[in-house]
Amino acid sequence: MVAFLSAGEVRVFAPATVANLGLGFDILGLALREPGDTVVARLVSGQKTVTLKEVRGDGGQLSKEAASNTAGIAAIEVLKKAGIEAGIELTLDKGLPIGSGMGSSAASAAAAALAVNLLLGSPLRKADLIGPCIEAEAAVSGRHADNVAPAMLGGLILVRALEPLDLLRLPVPDGLTIAVVSPRFELSTRKARSVLPEAVPLTALVRNTANIAALVSAFHSGDLTVIARCVPDEVVTPVRAALIPGCMEVIRAALDAGALGSSISGSGPSVFALCRSAVSAQKAAAAMVQAFERAGLAARAVVSPADSPGARRI
Amino acid sequence: MVAFLSAGEVRVFAPATVANLGLGFDILGLALREPGDTVVARLVSGQKTVTLKEVRGDGGQLSKEAASNTAGIAAIEVLKKAGIEAGIELTLDKGLPIGSGMGSSAASAAAAALAVNLLLGSPLRKADLIGPCIEAEAAVSGRHADNVAPAMLGGLILVRALEPLDLLRLPVPDGLTIAVVSPRFELSTRKARSVLPEAVPLTALVRNTANIAALVSAFHSGDLTVIARCVPDEVVTPVRAALIPGCMEVIRAALDAGALGSSISGSGPSVFALCRSAVSAQKAAAAMVQAFERAGLAARAVVSPADSPGARRI
Repeated sequence: MVAFLSAGEVRVFAPATVANLGLGFDILGLALREPGDTVVARLVSGQKTVTLKEVRGDGGQLSKEAASNTAGIAAIEVLKKAGIEAGIELTLDKGLPIGSGMGSSAASAAAAALAVNLLLGSPLRKADLIGPCIEAEAAVSGRHADNVAPAMLGGLILVRALEPLDLLRLPVPDGLTIAVVSPRFELSTRKARSVLPEAVPLTALVRNTANIAALVSAFHSGDLTVIARCVPDEVVTPVRAALIPGCMEVIRAALDAGALGSSISGSGPSVFALCRSAVSAQKAAAAMVQAFERAGLAARAVVSPADSPGARRI
Repeated sequence: MVAFLSAGEVRVFAPATVANLGLGFDILGLALREPGDTVVARLVSGQKTVTLKEVRGDGGQLSKEAASNTAGIAAIEVLKKAGIEAGIELTLDKGLPIGSGMGSSAASAAAAALAVNLLLGSPLRKADLIGPCIEAEAAVSGRHADNVAPAMLGGLILVRALEPLDLLRLPVPDGLTIAVVSPRFELSTRKARSVLPEAVPLTALVRNTANIAALVSAFHSGDLTVIARCVPDEVVTPVRAALIPGCMEVIRAALDAGALGSSISGSGPSVFALCRSAVSAQKAAAAMVQAFERAGLAARAVVSPADSPGARRI
């Protein structure tokens, strides 16, 4: 792709992300190498507002009002946080499907926030751009950072707290690869959140804390056999799986094909599998696509290193 | 201590332990250097039962029936697991207070299990002795391994699952030291368990999983500032603190004295503080003792490296 870049134009790519990773509901997420969204930001003289000039690749689904689109909201929030008034025109190229559970709204927000910050001469640090992206997410799908943080920073991120924001980067074992399979089936984050239980048994708290403690330990130690024991979650995954045709069969197919762990990506309907190598992830992806097809859904797979970069100028 | 050791006699020490460590309800525990219990096991010819010859230091509180005392039960279970019939006579020296939340019953069980195994020529591996100790705990204070596992193995242990038993050793940052203060106030594990909620809000699950994930990451990375942010628990600690006079003031005193984190040890009434050095732990211990005294309770403090050995022959 060749583009004419002037001093007044910045082009940024931000990747899809897999949030939750089974046990890490609202607290864990990792960046994929691709797909992702691309935002071009341009300074416009003579105005002091953010406008969304064009949205491509969304099939007409997204609002072109800056204040109703996560790219526009993130841009507005960055300007506010930097204390700068400027006229900015955004173009958003959706490279990833909407409502797929791969952090579509987060990728748009992260790309726009970084593009605007670069355009302004980087008044904010990259980590400070996550707050504006959380505001954008809150407007469309609830206040959570487990997509926007890895979309911005890359890698595997633990969101310890939202208020004040406290993020930890977790190490990713060498070779760890993720397969994500997206069925042609839209599930809104709002609907996926509506089925969540308000309370969980204390026994489930004990099991989930034990498993996430072991999972985090395994990310540090590189002991992949521990990851294989720790991805299952009994609280959020089962109620959401019921909204996705074939979901449990897809997870089973991934495990049968050798994946270390498999669960729902974000709020679904995509399903991810963590695998010990790219070869293993390709095998799991193929098995998962077939399982979705048996449930009557066409599906597409992506395979990515589990440690991929975040938003960046292209 | 000088003792006459024949081939038919083994003397084992097992340490006190701090379970839960705030967030790790039922899943995290670490061994203290001292105090602990000592068990002497002797082969007795002409009988095929376990007998408890003597219990010292318990103020007459503990049963001398082998089948009703965790030392005796653990010994019986080791014989059963090893498939060996033998006459064994145990002597138990209680070095640690009963009902203090420092793993008293677990220390007795671990010491007896290891003593019997050594006496029999070590038919079982040390890790295989934890199952018999869990049976002993189950008989007196509920089925959990977060005291017996570190009492046997030493160090900081994560109990990922009980069935089948899955334990992970977590690394302990250099210099990390724990202070434990025990007030003269007995609180049974059964009573402390009776106040636990049956269910917790999903929001509490999210916060506790986020904090324990960060805590485990901090044990690996050695970043003590993260530990300081992660010990508080909102689920178990508040309801149990209400059973212990001055508990919240003692925790506050520890933090004000520079502790990284402070919470209830096991099911209480002891309170622990994780500190960055022995000097810091001594300071926290003194402040905690004073806070218990202000609440009308005499208290004793122990300070120990957070990475101390488990049960061993002496």
